[in-house]
Amino acid sequence: MEFVTNPTEIEDKSFEMISELLGDRQFDPANLNVIKRVIHTSADFDYADNLVFSENAVAIGKEALKNGANIVTDTQMGRSGINKAALQKLGCVTHCFIDSPEVAEIAKETGQTRARTAVDRAIETLEKPIIFVVGNAPTALIRLYENIVEKGFKPDLIIAVPVGFVNVVESKELILELDIPHIVARGRKGGSNVAAAICNALLYETAGRD
Amino acid sequence: MEFVTNPTEIEDKSFEMISELLGDRQFDPANLNVIKRVIHTSADFDYADNLVFSENAVAIGKEALKNGANIVTDTQMGRSGINKAALQKLGCVTHCFIDSPEVAEIAKETGQTRARTAVDRAIETLEKPIIFVVGNAPTALIRLYENIVEKGFKPDLIIAVPVGFVNVVESKELILELDIPHIVARGRKGGSNVAAAICNALLYETAGRD
Repeated sequence: MEFVTNPTEIEDKSFEMISELLGDRQFDPANLNVIKRVIHTSADFDYADNLVFSENAVAIGKEALKNGANIVTDTQMGRSGINKAALQKLGCVTHCFIDSPEVAEIAKETGQTRARTAVDRAIETLEKPIIFVVGNAPTALIRLYENIVEKGFKPDLIIAVPVGFVNVVESKELILELDIPHIVARGRKGGSNVAAAICNALLYETAGRD
Repeated sequence: MEFVTNPTEIEDKSFEMISELLGDRQFDPANLNVIKRVIHTSADFDYADNLVFSENAVAIGKEALKNGANIVTDTQMGRSGINKAALQKLGCVTHCFIDSPEVAEIAKETGQTRARTAVDRAIETLEKPIIFVVGNAPTALIRLYENIVEKGFKPDLIIAVPVGFVNVVESKELILELDIPHIVARGRKGGSNVAAAICNALLYETAGRD
């Protein structure tokens, strides 16, 4: 059997196939790369319908990355899926507070969940530009929403794509209400892989694809 | 808005909803937990049709885990999605060779891809029981296939769930041909998240769910 083995060639060919399979569908050209990269990472064309972009979300995200954004993920899995070469090129840094002993301690003291405490710690300790990349925990989105509505916190971009059956749809609808730049996978679908793919699409558009 | 926040309660409720949504469909009871956990991680019911289990694959995988298996992933993302508490309880260890400087060096010397070299290094350096968990690289499956067919290598279990558009379907069909225990997501779908979910389903059945 003959296989294409050059990674660049594989990725190019994959994106061509995705374009073909999307057929005549029309998308905002600014969002197309993100949509295609999510389909590339999931082989799931539902994302052509599910992904919701607030006005200029992609441009705003790229601007934040160009300025060396702090990128906060809710899981180590999401964090580990974000391309390290592109991060380094732009001087961006990823953070995930969920496993930090400090967060565990504060969560224990306050009786909050670790996902909520992790959001608070990120907001308290990191400087802007700041992008939240949430692929797993609806409670992370809920806590972000509270910080935004109650305390006037303004992240540069929220990538809101938790997956699942409980609280997930509702937590994403909360983010859609906000006047904060966002990219949301409406409905049940999403995941840490989808979160990382969206972040990578923005990174590659900003830093180039090596 | 009222949200369920207890993680165990959320997981239990999610699995109830998945059971309801699967309706009257019949599955081999041995495979049901794996199928449900993959749907839980993707919210994608296509996996009820896509997942193919060789005879007793789940029981064989659990036996390997009980004996402190070496678990080899093709990506750091897949590795980071595997539950650490369950691994520790069973004395299992995860490995991912893709980023190792040694693999990079050998790949350079031999002109092979890193994914192929990483499979060879795992086979050369790790003892059985050994489980391969492949969520990304078709070339890792192809190299595994070659080691099995040409060199008589016998892994205890292969979880073969790369996602994508190039080489992916074909590489999974190769594994389906083999007389080696396997769990395969037939077709284009899969991913590191799906790979980790399958591994976790087996881990939780073996170690319990904390």
